[in-house]
Amino acid sequence: MLNTILEHRSIRKYKDKPVEDKILNQILEAGFRASTTGNMQVYSIIVTKDKKRKEKLCELYFNQEMVKEAPVLLTFCADFNRFNKWCRQRNAEPCYDNALSFFTGAIDALLVAQNVAIAAESFGLGICYLGTTIYQADKLIDFFNCPKGVVPITTLVVGYPDENPDLVDRLPYDGIIHKEVYKDYTSEKINNIYKEKESLPETKEIIKENKLDNLAQVFTQKRYTKKDNIYFSKIFLKSIESQGFMNNEE
Amino acid sequence: MLNTILEHRSIRKYKDKPVEDKILNQILEAGFRASTTGNMQVYSIIVTKDKKRKEKLCELYFNQEMVKEAPVLLTFCADFNRFNKWCRQRNAEPCYDNALSFFTGAIDALLVAQNVAIAAESFGLGICYLGTTIYQADKLIDFFNCPKGVVPITTLVVGYPDENPDLVDRLPYDGIIHKEVYKDYTSEKINNIYKEKESLPETKEIIKENKLDNLAQVFTQKRYTKKDNIYFSKIFLKSIESQGFMNNEE
Repeated sequence: MLNTILEHRSIRKYKDKPVEDKILNQILEAGFRASTTGNMQVYSIIVTKDKKRKEKLCELYFNQEMVKEAPVLLTFCADFNRFNKWCRQRNAEPCYDNALSFFTGAIDALLVAQNVAIAAESFGLGICYLGTTIYQADKLIDFFNCPKGVVPITTLVVGYPDENPDLVDRLPYDGIIHKEVYKDYTSEKINNIYKEKESLPETKEIIKENKLDNLAQVFTQKRYTKKDNIYFSKIFLKSIESQGFMNNEE
Repeated sequence: MLNTILEHRSIRKYKDKPVEDKILNQILEAGFRASTTGNMQVYSIIVTKDKKRKEKLCELYFNQEMVKEAPVLLTFCADFNRFNKWCRQRNAEPCYDNALSFFTGAIDALLVAQNVAIAAESFGLGICYLGTTIYQADKLIDFFNCPKGVVPITTLVVGYPDENPDLVDRLPYDGIIHKEVYKDYTSEKINNIYKEKESLPETKEIIKENKLDNLAQVFTQKRYTKKDNIYFSKIFLKSIESQGFMNNEE
């Protein structure tokens, strides 16, 4: 069981083979067992299998081929719509139109997503997260017809792997773990933490391809730039607001 | 492996028995294997074992006894501090002081937390999430001495279980899953989705204890009230801002 977690690789090439409904349902049910705040389960999962809709989603996800090639996409949403409707039908006035409620739903959605990811891998399926779901929240809200109270948070690509990539590097233990209090990093410590990552052949290749001096510059100048971050911050915040989660005053 | 996920129960009573370092480290390493955006790993984990500090945390967590009784608390933080420091040391100007970056870090922290939770359970340990980490973010930032760029997102209580609770109810499959598009709920559907939950003996007990008409009112009037939600929304948003994640303009 621990092995499934330890052997996780993101899969970006999938076989042209559907995921059996029986397996898909077991994976989703495994998601439902995740802890959620107050057992409110304020999330929903949208399943995409339709070829045409996957093609459209592929465009929205900046043309990552796997989005249309994989048999299944699972979009995990913070969802207070269902809960609010239930409250109103029970003569209980819901008060879940604020930032705290949004975060509560987002946390639910993410813990469920990771359960689903591990369950999928335990069946020999491959998965890849799309970190760009929050970048395209406004367009995805339209695409999925999400009512107020629903915001897409993350997406899992799921299918049978058609590649077998190596395990990817991770920062060392003492780069991540703090004992009792957060111990801020000295410049020497930073050098140690990133040393292995920086010395990898694939890192050197990426730096060369991008004609930059080092890996950090690849992140700041190519992958996650100020311009993009500000642009997509605005979109995501606006989506949270438009979906009715920013009424933070009495 | 799937069984570990399917048999999850939140544990709120713990044995007075430490978690062996060897096991704790394996669990944390399992956390590290989670997917993170761009493999940036923009999260940190703070381990609390110290008795006095657990007592103080117990107060911060609204006096939930398990917080001081369990041997280990793990606080998962969105963390761009380490990444920013690395960028600056490499002559790369970081641009991660915006809402998108905050969410990126929060997503990382939550996927890692769920890996840790499942890994812990696979060793026979019990876990419980503290959903109130985001409520007390400002106080936790002080308590853990978090620098700018670091925001606590969720906390896991970890230890050997001293109780064996039943599996908790979940909403039915078609209450959570949407096919291709979000299908909004009719009032009949809402009644069906919540029927089982509302009919449970423990639900009836809770309603009676609270002298209310139904379970939805317990949520809106007792557990998650408008007053609290607005109060804690402000605190959390202010914490995100004070930690330097709300510079969303050019």
